[in-house]
Amino acid sequence: MSNFEHETLFNFSKSIFIKMGCSETHARTAAEVLLSADLRGVDSHGVARLSGYVRLWEKKRINAKPDIKIVHETPSTATVDGDAGLGLVVAPYAMQLAIEKAKVAGTGWVSVKNSNHFGIAGCHSLMAAKEDMIGISMTNASPLVAPTFSKERLLGTNPIAVAIPANEEAPFVGDMATTTAANGKLEILQRKKLDAPYGWVQDKDGQPTTNSLGVNEGGALLPLGGDREHGSHKGYILGSVVDIFSAVLSGANYGPWVPPFVSFIEPREDLVGEGIGHFFGAMRVDAFRPADDFKNHMDNWIKRFRKSTPADSTQKVLIPGDPEIEMEAIRMRDGIPLITPVVNDLQLLADKFDLSLT
Amino acid sequence: MSNFEHETLFNFSKSIFIKMGCSETHARTAAEVLLSADLRGVDSHGVARLSGYVRLWEKKRINAKPDIKIVHETPSTATVDGDAGLGLVVAPYAMQLAIEKAKVAGTGWVSVKNSNHFGIAGCHSLMAAKEDMIGISMTNASPLVAPTFSKERLLGTNPIAVAIPANEEAPFVGDMATTTAANGKLEILQRKKLDAPYGWVQDKDGQPTTNSLGVNEGGALLPLGGDREHGSHKGYILGSVVDIFSAVLSGANYGPWVPPFVSFIEPREDLVGEGIGHFFGAMRVDAFRPADDFKNHMDNWIKRFRKSTPADSTQKVLIPGDPEIEMEAIRMRDGIPLITPVVNDLQLLADKFDLSLT
Repeated sequence: MSNFEHETLFNFSKSIFIKMGCSETHARTAAEVLLSADLRGVDSHGVARLSGYVRLWEKKRINAKPDIKIVHETPSTATVDGDAGLGLVVAPYAMQLAIEKAKVAGTGWVSVKNSNHFGIAGCHSLMAAKEDMIGISMTNASPLVAPTFSKERLLGTNPIAVAIPANEEAPFVGDMATTTAANGKLEILQRKKLDAPYGWVQDKDGQPTTNSLGVNEGGALLPLGGDREHGSHKGYILGSVVDIFSAVLSGANYGPWVPPFVSFIEPREDLVGEGIGHFFGAMRVDAFRPADDFKNHMDNWIKRFRKSTPADSTQKVLIPGDPEIEMEAIRMRDGIPLITPVVNDLQLLADKFDLSLT
Repeated sequence: MSNFEHETLFNFSKSIFIKMGCSETHARTAAEVLLSADLRGVDSHGVARLSGYVRLWEKKRINAKPDIKIVHETPSTATVDGDAGLGLVVAPYAMQLAIEKAKVAGTGWVSVKNSNHFGIAGCHSLMAAKEDMIGISMTNASPLVAPTFSKERLLGTNPIAVAIPANEEAPFVGDMATTTAANGKLEILQRKKLDAPYGWVQDKDGQPTTNSLGVNEGGALLPLGGDREHGSHKGYILGSVVDIFSAVLSGANYGPWVPPFVSFIEPREDLVGEGIGHFFGAMRVDAFRPADDFKNHMDNWIKRFRKSTPADSTQKVLIPGDPEIEMEAIRMRDGIPLITPVVNDLQLLADKFDLSLT
């Protein structure tokens, strides 16, 4: 484990994106999104992914100079073609477009095709919250999840993030995979050779298993709920809605056709759309009531839930987003800890591109 | 158990609403929404609730002649004051408004205050699907659910329904409480004096319990996921988002302030808003791509998921909405079965209002 200053990793990531051929502006945006994951403690979506983006670019599956454009629109909607660009760049473009639409029409909704992995969903939603808007972001992803009653992997972990502004309080930020556990949580158990709780994974025959390697051995992640008795059909609904809003609305690939995020697995030949899909929404709070009324009641909502009586006096009740804000303050002050395999990975990138990591 | 024809129960319900003082149009709408629950097999939200609406009206907590009106709007949004009307009438008004907004602006989003229980969420979303739009409906509800780590009941079962049109296929309709199990499912176990699975309920100390009466004894329903290890913080996020969209946006009561649905519990005196809240959305699919392209790909999505390899060959993989469509066909043909307590309840209403049940 080594510790890096935010600025060091930001500058390094930005330099890598520039070496890939990104413009200065795109490289800055991509590095900001990437580092926001490391700062917020979502280590699986930060610089640990940098070499993965590079490998996809080397395979020409990521276009460093995309011509991102609107291909369809109405006053409150748009469909964006990401031109195979970095999702880290395409997503902020699309969310900014949703925000601009909302300024005129009250709300803005943007579906995106022909994109790639967009990093941490919450980061995009927060763009709207800073403008006194509710921000929504979601994306489909490579198929790892079996629908209820199925033993096939047809859905990604398909996250949804909702950011809601308040007045004195920090924004509410719910950012969740629509599976019982995000893949990053499972990878931690795999590295430590630990079992997974029942309800996270099924084996290749569709039976419940505690084998944390079950997904790699032909099994699947399970939708939020885990099994039918515990509401997995609801996680299946949520993952499906994300898939449809992100890809059937936009013309991206959906379900089992979503291209893999890893460079060593080739996309299928029978694609039904272009790239992966995202979906973004921005709703001006003053499109419903005066912004101060909304934000003051939101403060009241947050304060009331935060002071809820805990079941266990050592674990207070949290507001979604609280742990990430706390982590961001700590990591801005004390640096971002990276495990050795990630440091080695970044060092290889530094060598490849003739850059210095520190 | 007795069997009733749809038409009989529809006419009876409509007559009751007219006896309450509803207009002919409102009574028809309310009866349609109520009966759609019985037809679709969601027995907890159909005629079993009719006497509950009557009791709230007798207590003057439901206004049979509401002046439902728009109190705030932009091209793609509106806030509606339901004037304490039946949610069964206020909700279709608000969804129709969302549809009209979408015709002009691409999408329409309506937040509602000062309403009451709106019946089955999926019924409202389906209004949009019939117009080639994606329909979204949600509502907050009386507090029965404890946030993760809490032993207080601060949220309702806060359902979300999403209806998505297809071409040859019936619409995708996901309609789900944001708890592990809907309250109606728990009531079935209570009547049969059966235990509930772990993950549905906690006791008054916030500890997991299989006691299906746990909620009545000071405990709480659990957010989808059940416990932290199985993702209950995600169910908590979803329930919170429904609460905020429905009530903080509109000016209704939220969290622990939501008025009870039952007439024998009085609303609190320190209310933070008016009535309960709902939220509706309608998105024209052709606001994103040509409608036929969308609907044909939606057919493909549905067909692919439906033919997914089952884990158990006796249980095929379902598309959300499939079981309800099947049930509707059966009950339209064979009638709607009602348990004796519900029949007795309806007979009491018949006597009170000098009507005939059959």
